[in-house]
Amino acid sequence: MNGVTHQKWWGWGVEGVAFHHEDKPKLAPFVLDKVGIDLHAPGTPPPAFDDIAVPATRLGDELATTLRRAVGEDYLVTDDLDRVVHTYGKGLADLVKIRAGHLPRVPDVVVYPGDEDEVRAVVDAVVAADAVLIPFGGGSNISGSLTPPADEERVVVSLDLGRMNRVLEVDEAAGLARVQAGVLGPDLEDQLGARGWTMGHQPDSFRHSTLGGWIATRSSGMQSDKYGDIADITRGLRMVQPGKVVVLRPLPSTSSGPSVREMILGSEGRLGVITEAWVNVHRLPENREIIAYLFPTWAAGLAAMAEIAASDAAPSVTRVSDANETQFSLATQKKSRGIKGKVSKALFAVLERRGWDLEQACLSYIGYEGGKERVAREKAIVGKIVKAHGGIKLGTGPGALYDQKKFDTPYIRDFLLDVGGLADVSETAMPWSRLMDVYSGTVRAAREAFDRLGVKGFIMCHLSHSYHSGACLYFTFAFPPGTDDVEEQLARYWEVKSAVQQSFVDTGATISHHHGVGTDHAHWLEEDISEAGTDVMVALLRGVDPGRNLNPGTLIPAQREW
Amino acid sequence: MNGVTHQKWWGWGVEGVAFHHEDKPKLAPFVLDKVGIDLHAPGTPPPAFDDIAVPATRLGDELATTLRRAVGEDYLVTDDLDRVVHTYGKGLADLVKIRAGHLPRVPDVVVYPGDEDEVRAVVDAVVAADAVLIPFGGGSNISGSLTPPADEERVVVSLDLGRMNRVLEVDEAAGLARVQAGVLGPDLEDQLGARGWTMGHQPDSFRHSTLGGWIATRSSGMQSDKYGDIADITRGLRMVQPGKVVVLRPLPSTSSGPSVREMILGSEGRLGVITEAWVNVHRLPENREIIAYLFPTWAAGLAAMAEIAASDAAPSVTRVSDANETQFSLATQKKSRGIKGKVSKALFAVLERRGWDLEQACLSYIGYEGGKERVAREKAIVGKIVKAHGGIKLGTGPGALYDQKKFDTPYIRDFLLDVGGLADVSETAMPWSRLMDVYSGTVRAAREAFDRLGVKGFIMCHLSHSYHSGACLYFTFAFPPGTDDVEEQLARYWEVKSAVQQSFVDTGATISHHHGVGTDHAHWLEEDISEAGTDVMVALLRGVDPGRNLNPGTLIPAQREW
Repeated sequence: MNGVTHQKWWGWGVEGVAFHHEDKPKLAPFVLDKVGIDLHAPGTPPPAFDDIAVPATRLGDELATTLRRAVGEDYLVTDDLDRVVHTYGKGLADLVKIRAGHLPRVPDVVVYPGDEDEVRAVVDAVVAADAVLIPFGGGSNISGSLTPPADEERVVVSLDLGRMNRVLEVDEAAGLARVQAGVLGPDLEDQLGARGWTMGHQPDSFRHSTLGGWIATRSSGMQSDKYGDIADITRGLRMVQPGKVVVLRPLPSTSSGPSVREMILGSEGRLGVITEAWVNVHRLPENREIIAYLFPTWAAGLAAMAEIAASDAAPSVTRVSDANETQFSLATQKKSRGIKGKVSKALFAVLERRGWDLEQACLSYIGYEGGKERVAREKAIVGKIVKAHGGIKLGTGPGALYDQKKFDTPYIRDFLLDVGGLADVSETAMPWSRLMDVYSGTVRAAREAFDRLGVKGFIMCHLSHSYHSGACLYFTFAFPPGTDDVEEQLARYWEVKSAVQQSFVDTGATISHHHGVGTDHAHWLEEDISEAGTDVMVALLRGVDPGRNLNPGTLIPAQREW
Repeated sequence: MNGVTHQKWWGWGVEGVAFHHEDKPKLAPFVLDKVGIDLHAPGTPPPAFDDIAVPATRLGDELATTLRRAVGEDYLVTDDLDRVVHTYGKGLADLVKIRAGHLPRVPDVVVYPGDEDEVRAVVDAVVAADAVLIPFGGGSNISGSLTPPADEERVVVSLDLGRMNRVLEVDEAAGLARVQAGVLGPDLEDQLGARGWTMGHQPDSFRHSTLGGWIATRSSGMQSDKYGDIADITRGLRMVQPGKVVVLRPLPSTSSGPSVREMILGSEGRLGVITEAWVNVHRLPENREIIAYLFPTWAAGLAAMAEIAASDAAPSVTRVSDANETQFSLATQKKSRGIKGKVSKALFAVLERRGWDLEQACLSYIGYEGGKERVAREKAIVGKIVKAHGGIKLGTGPGALYDQKKFDTPYIRDFLLDVGGLADVSETAMPWSRLMDVYSGTVRAAREAFDRLGVKGFIMCHLSHSYHSGACLYFTFAFPPGTDDVEEQLARYWEVKSAVQQSFVDTGATISHHHGVGTDHAHWLEEDISEAGTDVMVALLRGVDPGRNLNPGTLIPAQREW
């Protein structure tokens, strides 16, 4: 498609890559035990594209002509596949809907501008025609930010930034790079890496998400403890609005009033189209290690993370899984052959003799970057803290394996859908003092939802980011919907997802740490930032986009805005 | 005044404290040489308050009754002194005006609410009466954020938060404190310190500025390299608006859309009244040292700071002065007696023999905090970098002295005004790659302005904060206005100040790193954040405060807003 590659129209990632269980002998029994799904039963693959009914485009000749003039003949596309690719992100509800051919509203046209001037021409044309514009990066969004409202009567234009994918400039003295918004993670890091630099931003979606998307949703990455969240990394940017361009020059800090930079961060297309950004970049680290540790309990693991955050060590990654997620990780391991399997078995035997309840053990990964001396010192500090909390070091082997495989996780949801399981994620952040309340409340809320539905559900969690005052908890839940009716499947999914989100705001946590608001979390925004705080956001959106032409429905529920 | 202490009505700080030159023998010759002012000539002290004509209050009975009911009889004040105290901040133009009895518009009433409910009652009463509300903290603002527009026809209410000065709560597990907005720096640190905690925020105005004021202007402190700017420190807050309260719970990070927290930071009273905040606090450091270094040139000092920022050391303070500021520092030293003076003379002789041009030498302070091992390690890293750039260590003596005296600098402006000199500051931030351009451009712009005015002027600078991608440069300039006419004095002041600010935006720097926009910098906002970026800010302000009741004229020039 015009040099821009897309993910599968029906699922995560690229064609030909998928999750398999055949090489992971412990997984089938684990899944059967936890959610009652038999991985050996015949599944239901995604449908063929030809079996999907795609609504016809509503693009009129006049707007088509203006848009064609804006981007050129080759970069205006109305074919069904391209429009369907741009209809959904990759949230669980998106995946269920697309597999069911549920397409109430599909963008009428996809445009692929090649530079900012073309973006300006598109934005101006869309607003002049009172159409709707939805910016599209890698399409990995899982909060419902990319889907046109089902009742949208106006023409919907999806603006794909995929052609704007270059690192334009590296300011070596400042450690800043000027980068086009449409660049995908691997492409960005390849271009920076070739010059000896890295941005260090590694969200789970890394392979299929873009810089502009990260900025528009306030993304975080696996290494954000060191490199900062995207809000820290982004120092300047350009955003196209109707008739004009917001230009924020790169600055390390400024007191020029309410931060317009921080208004654009997280704006999810509602204030305009981000075309490029100045981002912090760093010299590639001399050394990089991810070490696995094992804690006797979740409480011990969390306490260790809090202590590491307050210590003089500043690791690049701090992660610890609860017992359920640890069991899941062990269940997805490939068959250990020879000496490795034996060592692992021997270790577990030793821990049992020491009184560990292995069902309660929690796996942790800590990442270290920098000069040899720094890495050694931080490892020593962390090692002491781990020991003080009863943990043990497993070594770099599992850490390296985790590092290689970390971007493969999203494929599992499609695999589970094939066999009739619904799985999704919700992440949040809260002060250290509330961590256990949020965790217990959320696990309880999910279990109660499973009980209400009468299904066998599973929920697991890891701490994924540490800050001075708190942390991010990242939950994954799965259950068999117990019905083939798609509407009923979605209703049951929302029963669980809503229970989790409601528990977040009820226990003092936020609706999302790094997935954004979209339409999926918009319902809880008032409970998160207060009614008056939501009014402030509405004032901003209304003032900038009075015609609601820019990704309407995202961030604020439509009825709240009017 | 109702238990709330204020600064001098005519100048910086408290009655009885002032800057003197008699104990600093090198200062008079220095000042005579640099700006041609004779410190021994008879000066003009500030006028007596009784000689000032204060416009009568315009407060009507109806609003007076409502406000009295809101805060109680004792906490509504209309006397002249209190209203004059609340008319100006402490910018140079403010000081010149108040000494001249220039009072075109004075708040009509000052109210001192005791809690958030009283603030709500005041805000509601003011907006219901279509009056104007100006929140007031310590009154240290130097950007013109506190002064009612001269042509404001409506009643003006100054809301002094001085009674709301308590640390309400410390969350020890999270390292967070909930603090009322009206607390002054020393009071805040005393309350936290008594429990073993510190917020670590030390702006030059520390003794006379408040938490709410820091948040409303996006303040930074001397130790922000370690503790973060106030935007980093502030994790949650409450802000009163007409009829409602924005409540942002403390969160380490969130992706809940455009950041309302970051809209309130820097809002300078235009979105409401900040009543309390959740702030990051830290255990009092085990060790704290500030070490002085000397570099052979400004370029060497700046290069060293950039290298320190990129190193594994993370000092709490990074500061280096240019040659002019270094000369000024040496000129304000008290007479060195005995061995100390001799050591200093001997050192300078050694440096001259090594080929240093002592006129070019640049003084630097680096601060270290933490455990013994950490402080030692960071000192070793910095020591190597200093050496590599030709610098030498002077030791902890001058550093400790600087640390004791650092909050006294603002008194110098009043001292100079007594003897007929105008002195003020402008600070900015920019990427490391632009540092020298901004510096040279600003020094040149100031000198050209001095030449246009035909005055003998002086400008000096220090780097005050370091970030990954850049730094803050802090300029101080002084000159004799060459006229007794106050209007002409102000015009000449603006000639220089404007040249400096214009140079900032022309060379890629921001209009302010931590003093805010106010009315003084509003003229350059569009050049800083672009016209379209300013439109975004205007949309926010208009949407939240359509009646322009909340500190109108600040941030955005009135004519730009309509």
